[in-house]
Amino acid sequence: MSLLKETISAIVPQNATVRAQAHKRLEALTMPHWALGRLLDLAEDLAGITGSMHPPIARKAIFTMAADHGVVAEGVSKYPQEVTPQMVYNFVAGGAGINALARQVGASVTVVDMGVAADLCELADAGKIVSRRIGPGTKNMARGPAMSRKEATLAIEAGIDCARKAASSVDVFGTGEMGIGNTTPSSAIVAVLSGAPVKEVTGHGTGIDAGQFSHKVSVIEKALAINAPDRSDGLDVLAKVGGFEIGGIAGLILGAAALKKPVVVDGFISTAGALIAHALCPTAAEYMIAAHRSVEKGHRAALKILGKQPLIDLDLRLGEGTGAALAMNFLEAAVRILTEVATFDEASVSKANT
Amino acid sequence: MSLLKETISAIVPQNATVRAQAHKRLEALTMPHWALGRLLDLAEDLAGITGSMHPPIARKAIFTMAADHGVVAEGVSKYPQEVTPQMVYNFVAGGAGINALARQVGASVTVVDMGVAADLCELADAGKIVSRRIGPGTKNMARGPAMSRKEATLAIEAGIDCARKAASSVDVFGTGEMGIGNTTPSSAIVAVLSGAPVKEVTGHGTGIDAGQFSHKVSVIEKALAINAPDRSDGLDVLAKVGGFEIGGIAGLILGAAALKKPVVVDGFISTAGALIAHALCPTAAEYMIAAHRSVEKGHRAALKILGKQPLIDLDLRLGEGTGAALAMNFLEAAVRILTEVATFDEASVSKANT
Repeated sequence: MSLLKETISAIVPQNATVRAQAHKRLEALTMPHWALGRLLDLAEDLAGITGSMHPPIARKAIFTMAADHGVVAEGVSKYPQEVTPQMVYNFVAGGAGINALARQVGASVTVVDMGVAADLCELADAGKIVSRRIGPGTKNMARGPAMSRKEATLAIEAGIDCARKAASSVDVFGTGEMGIGNTTPSSAIVAVLSGAPVKEVTGHGTGIDAGQFSHKVSVIEKALAINAPDRSDGLDVLAKVGGFEIGGIAGLILGAAALKKPVVVDGFISTAGALIAHALCPTAAEYMIAAHRSVEKGHRAALKILGKQPLIDLDLRLGEGTGAALAMNFLEAAVRILTEVATFDEASVSKANT
Repeated sequence: MSLLKETISAIVPQNATVRAQAHKRLEALTMPHWALGRLLDLAEDLAGITGSMHPPIARKAIFTMAADHGVVAEGVSKYPQEVTPQMVYNFVAGGAGINALARQVGASVTVVDMGVAADLCELADAGKIVSRRIGPGTKNMARGPAMSRKEATLAIEAGIDCARKAASSVDVFGTGEMGIGNTTPSSAIVAVLSGAPVKEVTGHGTGIDAGQFSHKVSVIEKALAINAPDRSDGLDVLAKVGGFEIGGIAGLILGAAALKKPVVVDGFISTAGALIAHALCPTAAEYMIAAHRSVEKGHRAALKILGKQPLIDLDLRLGEGTGAALAMNFLEAAVRILTEVATFDEASVSKANT
């Protein structure tokens, strides 16, 4: 059995017994009923995911998957492609947004080269990044498939492998990415899997203007027309209009779900990866926690497919894993509530009049 | 000059020079323009508040102000008044929501008895709470003023004093409260200061049903009719339809603003306190950070008066300072971004095509 098939077959629903036990305790805490709202929903979720009334979440790891995209040849991004490797160097030096926010919450950052169009051997040889290159960037999806089906499988399996290798040292995973042009394949994936018109799930990426936006929409429409991705086949969607880092994220999520560990899904591009994981294995969604609502227009449609309401809404649109890192603070808070707050009986507090 | 007048006269606008300097640096960080959205707004705010490009925020303190309300005699709450002192004991034992969330973010919790209708001398004598009692709960505002003008001033000055005493050991203040029935005076304050009809700024508190809700609205309407609070006079509003803990919160906020330190305002009741502070000194709002949007209906109108958009929206309705504690994670994150992320020039990353 392939690693992908083996992983998918290992993904089972949340632990319903522990989830129910957590729900019961949370209802009995010294506060009006469910007065901490979605923080309590999160606590219940973490109990169900980990199968524990003391969900372990101390060891946090963000995987920032980097890759390039052939479709940038169509002029869909405001930034030159050289920014992808430049930002990888910035991550390694600790100077990017994700480094600062990961330090704040005590998470590690692992940068994975999934296929950057530059030679990063120096960093990989020094152990500063993980090299799981599928190729030097995808092909231009406006002219044919972004990658082969074989490459799509390899990208996902690389992500699964990241999760498996970290199994004994990580409690909570977070997804992140870097790749100039990657809102374009992400919008394409959301359009295919939601059935929504392209312009309704396409945003302004790193800051393109109205004219560039119309062009971006037409490029995505062309890619969908030429490739005709099969929405019932997640691998086909990834291969036709995806990206190597998006495949890596899908794999990381499937790997985390198979390990029964929570995975915090960052913003728009990460959610595109989550949609691929969900297409391959709907049950995987039970292990996903949506970090934040991105400014990118297609994010709402993507989260709707997953049935997720994000924890944070601060107009973020950076990616890298920044929203995931920020949201990990709430995971800590939720577990504190589940494990440290007294019940009415324990604290001898009078209950409400009924 | 009274402590209140002295404090108000010490409140000046944010440091515009440092604020502009922070804005400039945040615009130059290695990310698309303002890509961390409201987290960057917060970073800019913290620089302006503290007058520093390295805003100190390590030492965090939540002040949970507790008091009782004569208006509970009208049957406005679902919980008996004895819950107020019971929860004070719960806070002291470390078993409440605020204790768990304060521990998560590394904040201290100081419980202040502003006027609980029970004997808490034992706790005060043991140094486990701070006693700044104005009286054994307010009077029933549905039959006359909740307190005298003198008591209103004393309540505010007690809060100011809390901030001043902590000046050398605290970087960031957070407000919190406990007081059975205190959404009732809070809605009354919001109704007076917003001019909105009572039923539009009244919510379901700890969980009353539709019939109890109509009754609560009529009690507040009666209190406003009998007392006719003068909306141009913050002290009059607090005295007529406020609460001792609400006055304490107003004072803590004024005290923090005079010290040029950020104060994270928790939910609905805390925001009622913030409205009193704002009525007495509009400039104080420049030092307030709105933690979260409460489920309580009147919170939106209250935040609108202050011109604040809250950081968190997780359907919280507990109070105690829980939302403030949770939001302090974002203050840490914002300062990390301001102080640790490289600029394009520092990291040699290519800028956007223009």
